[in-house]
Amino acid sequence: MQIAKLLARRTNQMQASTIREILKVVSQPGIISLAGGIPAPASFPVELIPGLIETVLSKYGTTALQYDLTEGFLPLRQALSRHLFQKGIKATADEIYIASGSQGILDAVGKALISKGDAVAVESPTYLGAIQAFDPYEPEYIPLETDDHGLVPASLDRVLSSLRIKFVYSVPTFQNPSGRTLTLERRERIAQIIRRHDALLIEDDPYSDLRYQGEHLTPIKVLAPNHVVYISTLSKVFAPGLRIGFYLAPKDLREWLVIVKQGVDLHTSTLNQAIAAEYLSGNHLDRQLPEIIRLYKPKKEAMLQALDKHFPNDFKWSKPEGGMFLWAEGPKGFDAMDLYHRCVAKGVAFVPGKYFFADKRSGLETMRLNFTMADKEAIDFCIQTMADTITACRAFHSRQVFA
Amino acid sequence: MQIAKLLARRTNQMQASTIREILKVVSQPGIISLAGGIPAPASFPVELIPGLIETVLSKYGTTALQYDLTEGFLPLRQALSRHLFQKGIKATADEIYIASGSQGILDAVGKALISKGDAVAVESPTYLGAIQAFDPYEPEYIPLETDDHGLVPASLDRVLSSLRIKFVYSVPTFQNPSGRTLTLERRERIAQIIRRHDALLIEDDPYSDLRYQGEHLTPIKVLAPNHVVYISTLSKVFAPGLRIGFYLAPKDLREWLVIVKQGVDLHTSTLNQAIAAEYLSGNHLDRQLPEIIRLYKPKKEAMLQALDKHFPNDFKWSKPEGGMFLWAEGPKGFDAMDLYHRCVAKGVAFVPGKYFFADKRSGLETMRLNFTMADKEAIDFCIQTMADTITACRAFHSRQVFA
Repeated sequence: MQIAKLLARRTNQMQASTIREILKVVSQPGIISLAGGIPAPASFPVELIPGLIETVLSKYGTTALQYDLTEGFLPLRQALSRHLFQKGIKATADEIYIASGSQGILDAVGKALISKGDAVAVESPTYLGAIQAFDPYEPEYIPLETDDHGLVPASLDRVLSSLRIKFVYSVPTFQNPSGRTLTLERRERIAQIIRRHDALLIEDDPYSDLRYQGEHLTPIKVLAPNHVVYISTLSKVFAPGLRIGFYLAPKDLREWLVIVKQGVDLHTSTLNQAIAAEYLSGNHLDRQLPEIIRLYKPKKEAMLQALDKHFPNDFKWSKPEGGMFLWAEGPKGFDAMDLYHRCVAKGVAFVPGKYFFADKRSGLETMRLNFTMADKEAIDFCIQTMADTITACRAFHSRQVFA
Repeated sequence: MQIAKLLARRTNQMQASTIREILKVVSQPGIISLAGGIPAPASFPVELIPGLIETVLSKYGTTALQYDLTEGFLPLRQALSRHLFQKGIKATADEIYIASGSQGILDAVGKALISKGDAVAVESPTYLGAIQAFDPYEPEYIPLETDDHGLVPASLDRVLSSLRIKFVYSVPTFQNPSGRTLTLERRERIAQIIRRHDALLIEDDPYSDLRYQGEHLTPIKVLAPNHVVYISTLSKVFAPGLRIGFYLAPKDLREWLVIVKQGVDLHTSTLNQAIAAEYLSGNHLDRQLPEIIRLYKPKKEAMLQALDKHFPNDFKWSKPEGGMFLWAEGPKGFDAMDLYHRCVAKGVAFVPGKYFFADKRSGLETMRLNFTMADKEAIDFCIQTMADTITACRAFHSRQVFA
């Protein structure tokens, strides 16, 4: 039968993620990829799983296999309460809700808040998964200015002063895609600004535990508790395959997010929540996190060194203190998409940065580089290949100009 | 901050499930409940889990903890292909997609297909979880007539002839809430009708494996393969806490359902999909299913006996050959909600049937009775208490009439 005639109008604003298509191509054998955004398998504590399962079954028995509350499995929420306390966030188990990955909360926020045409303010560039979560609810995106220190507070203030914004979406720490981090001073200014405008900010924080140097920075949630939905996940510090996200939201909103989630998936896997509860309460994260950092930090340094060594002088890149990504920018007019195609032909992949901009004409000269998946030698090889290709490409174009 | 002013317009059509509120009340200690709709914990093969995990980790290693395809974990889809073949459904692994419980597919179907005001035809009564999944997309529900043999084909034909229907939603086997099953002859007629009208039917089939007597009936999917989305789940035959649903859909629709799911939860838990794959491919379901049937069948018979023994002559009830529910109906004018309140005061609970009707004035005299959770003695006690309360209630009302 003809499905096209049955599709909802909202599908006009939805499309298969181009990045996902890119990732399919670059996961072919023979391609070395800086394109992915996924944790290294070596970061997963596989050897802990049988013991965690044993504890889960002896502690919770059949409860771990049964339906559970939409709000989340209480022992996990209790363990997260202690975990968040270490980050300076005071929340009781009752205030912490669980979702199926942070994607699940982004979808719920979109469904509860966005009516067609509502304005949602996003960083420029921004996290693509959020755009994919919000798109079906048909918002208009208002891009916010960013620089090397993340979201520019004056830009936020200007937008909130001139437009009616449903909410602001931000990844303040080791942002995907840029790796940039908002300074403490800016966090304080942004907290002031959203309080003053009585605006809601979604603070997405998947990476702050992956800090390889420097000091932990206070979440905006702590600075404006009533105006912020704080979202995080165990995907980067335990295992993404468990699909465990969690969030803190103002009470009235939290109740709506639960109603939304009931319709979407009833609740998140009880078994996985129980495993995660034991991972946290058995202090396994405290032991595992230094291992993950020991794994990623040298990769990040290898990438920075390779960029210093190989990349042309007129390129710049972020120097994050953690996370999974670097962000490289060529000079105005540089075509990162062209570079992408030439590099893939040589077996090297990255993600052209333009995909991360709500405004489709922006970011043509930018690139997202992931450093968690490849090893140090592969990272050097990739960056060198990219640099060589940039040089070859420029020689070709300048020949064309003189031809 | 004021959340109410930020809510999306669609929240007008959304509300906390009344049943969920009922279930909260009746899960208090001291209440014996026929209200729930959940499997007995004794049906879960807890003792298999450590062995399944061991196999999963040795076979798939870190892959079981990593991000995976939105479409689903391939070994599970391969195992489901063999499982479905036993039911007469021929589908390759490529055609079987995974979701986070069948709720996840219901949500995706709603998001991909329903624009505000679209007509969706549902059985009367219908499964409440489907209504909760569809509500946020703001459809109009068109109720379809049912009788002791489920959906009345002539009613479907009439509705499809006179209205533009986005899709039809049906639970043909051991329906929740009614326990009713569509005969083979009706399945064939319905398949003809939807093919003739070129209409899409969502066939939700969570219970058909729980057949305690009688012959397996061909799914409508087999009779009209291009016009049916077939949905099922491992929640009733393995463990709901794993949140594993699966579906077959026409190719063009399947591709949209994947795009939708990407925005909602990226993918379903890899670990749980791997556990489910080993449960199926290790033939554990084939061994477990007779155990589950051995557990539930006597409970169903105990409930039927208790109804025969205790219930007034002017009540009738369904006599299903499987599933988890019976459906009881009082004479016209009987108030099941009043009975509910009086029974809860005596420590006995069930779900008033009116909640399962899209038309709020229907089903006031009906009740859903679950037989999987309570033991045989408790079932007899509950049914007797309900019967006594009906009698007391009638005596009270007739005294009022003569007063």
